[in-house]
Amino acid sequence: MKDIVAGIDIGGTNSEVGLVDNEGNVLDRASMKTRAHGKDFSAYLEDLSRLINDLVKTNAVSLVGIGIGAPNGNINNGSIEHAPNLDWKGIVPFCEKLQVHFPEIPIRLTNDANAAALGEKLFGNGKMIDNFLTITLGTGVGSGFIVNGQLMYGHDGMAGEAGHTVVDPNGRVCGCGRRGCLETYVSASGIVRTAAEQLSIHHFQSKLADIPFSELESKTIADLAAKGDVVAQKVFEITGRTLGMKLADFVAITSPKAIFIAGGVVNAGELLLKPVREHMEANLLSIYKGKVRIEKSGLPGIDSAILGAAALIWSQNK
Amino acid sequence: MKDIVAGIDIGGTNSEVGLVDNEGNVLDRASMKTRAHGKDFSAYLEDLSRLINDLVKTNAVSLVGIGIGAPNGNINNGSIEHAPNLDWKGIVPFCEKLQVHFPEIPIRLTNDANAAALGEKLFGNGKMIDNFLTITLGTGVGSGFIVNGQLMYGHDGMAGEAGHTVVDPNGRVCGCGRRGCLETYVSASGIVRTAAEQLSIHHFQSKLADIPFSELESKTIADLAAKGDVVAQKVFEITGRTLGMKLADFVAITSPKAIFIAGGVVNAGELLLKPVREHMEANLLSIYKGKVRIEKSGLPGIDSAILGAAALIWSQNK
Repeated sequence: MKDIVAGIDIGGTNSEVGLVDNEGNVLDRASMKTRAHGKDFSAYLEDLSRLINDLVKTNAVSLVGIGIGAPNGNINNGSIEHAPNLDWKGIVPFCEKLQVHFPEIPIRLTNDANAAALGEKLFGNGKMIDNFLTITLGTGVGSGFIVNGQLMYGHDGMAGEAGHTVVDPNGRVCGCGRRGCLETYVSASGIVRTAAEQLSIHHFQSKLADIPFSELESKTIADLAAKGDVVAQKVFEITGRTLGMKLADFVAITSPKAIFIAGGVVNAGELLLKPVREHMEANLLSIYKGKVRIEKSGLPGIDSAILGAAALIWSQNK
Repeated sequence: MKDIVAGIDIGGTNSEVGLVDNEGNVLDRASMKTRAHGKDFSAYLEDLSRLINDLVKTNAVSLVGIGIGAPNGNINNGSIEHAPNLDWKGIVPFCEKLQVHFPEIPIRLTNDANAAALGEKLFGNGKMIDNFLTITLGTGVGSGFIVNGQLMYGHDGMAGEAGHTVVDPNGRVCGCGRRGCLETYVSASGIVRTAAEQLSIHHFQSKLADIPFSELESKTIADLAAKGDVVAQKVFEITGRTLGMKLADFVAITSPKAIFIAGGVVNAGELLLKPVREHMEANLLSIYKGKVRIEKSGLPGIDSAILGAAALIWSQNK
């Protein structure tokens, strides 16, 4: 039987499970609702374990480990700590409790963006690179830094929250309770906020003016920009500038060879990446100019979180 | 004969050489002018080599390596790259040229702040800590990050330029050609600039108003603050706030256990450290609150650069 790792991506809506081999192929996958049992974490774990076991049985593989990517995941103790978008409050000892269902195999958990960076290192565009970072642009903004070939976890296992570095201390209100975090500008919802801001400033004609704020999505803005909507284009230019300027800061600290952008927002492609590159380059300290490339993640969007989670185990076994 | 490493600190004015044993004791030291020979790098190296050899002979020790801390020092190739405050322009292959004079021992070079962090790890307050950072506040602002027990050099050997992360993109002109770098606010000269700014804003009585800008030093401002000068106190409060807010960003990226502050400015003690701590803590993302301590460097100020430079060799031999 083939050795397989179950990679689990825990999101606010769905928990996705995939069977991943040591070359990064996803053999099969399944999904369940993360909130199906409300605050009842034990009931959730029962269902999750059943889902994993069913997948393993159906595919006749040998389960050698479970890797989990979760919001506010702590690699040091395998807990999810105060995740704002999950129903389980406080510190949830995820690995410890799941281990009861799978007593004989390693189980590891980290935050989703750290997992994405590790997935990039094992299976994506970061294979040959010992110093890079991954920025995930989705509902939130996450980051994972590979330093000297290893994921940088920091002292407490919680490093890599670049989404909560500050663009403007008097800026937009963030879900974290502070103001002006990068996440409030360059996440999917940050881009929608920038669209509203631009509508408030300019007189241009724009289809964006006909869509209620609550219904607007970053994908819609990207589509309109592609069709020539001037405000929508300006929104991505501004988003790229904000991200590019902060990336220049991250380069000054970590001096990476590459920066990989992952998450749903990167589907906008060059509409986003071009201004990010230009503004990062323009803001780099001279010693870093021309040295750092910015690319889309090399992991397939649909499976990137699962691959990253599985990489938590496979990176230990290589 | 005792094994000794020569630790060399190359500054814009002086080049200091110290003989350092593997426990961080400085047995003897000597100094020469960095600019004594203008652009003639070979003549400088002749003098430096003579200085080292004389020290070694006088102290009857066995020289087992040479470590060098220098502005814009690159660990990967042992070069000093485009250092704005030195007379040697372009890329200077320092280690390669010095190796001719000392063909049989290892010679390593990195930037002064990276060396300071490594010195802290080997001989200072960072001995038992695998994730911390050192910020040096002097003429400029440097930084060195210890990640997973190792110095973070980045892809090109030039990581750790936190002094050139940006506080305000429209802010003060920086020597690097950009605007608003942290260095322009919290270095010794940044503190002097803040004093001038505060004089321009307030109506308070202050001794600072009687000193020409060109003659003002951060130490004078600290002394006045200690004597109750309200503007001088406000200058350090603002300096602490600016640094504390940026440190909160660095924590979100690297999640260190501790932050050590080194360099001449830290002689201001709690006058600086108290507001730094308060403002960092107030600006931390909740998951990091109460976890990161801020302390003065544990290396003796006068020898910290020499100890850091020597640590480049001793860290390889331990």
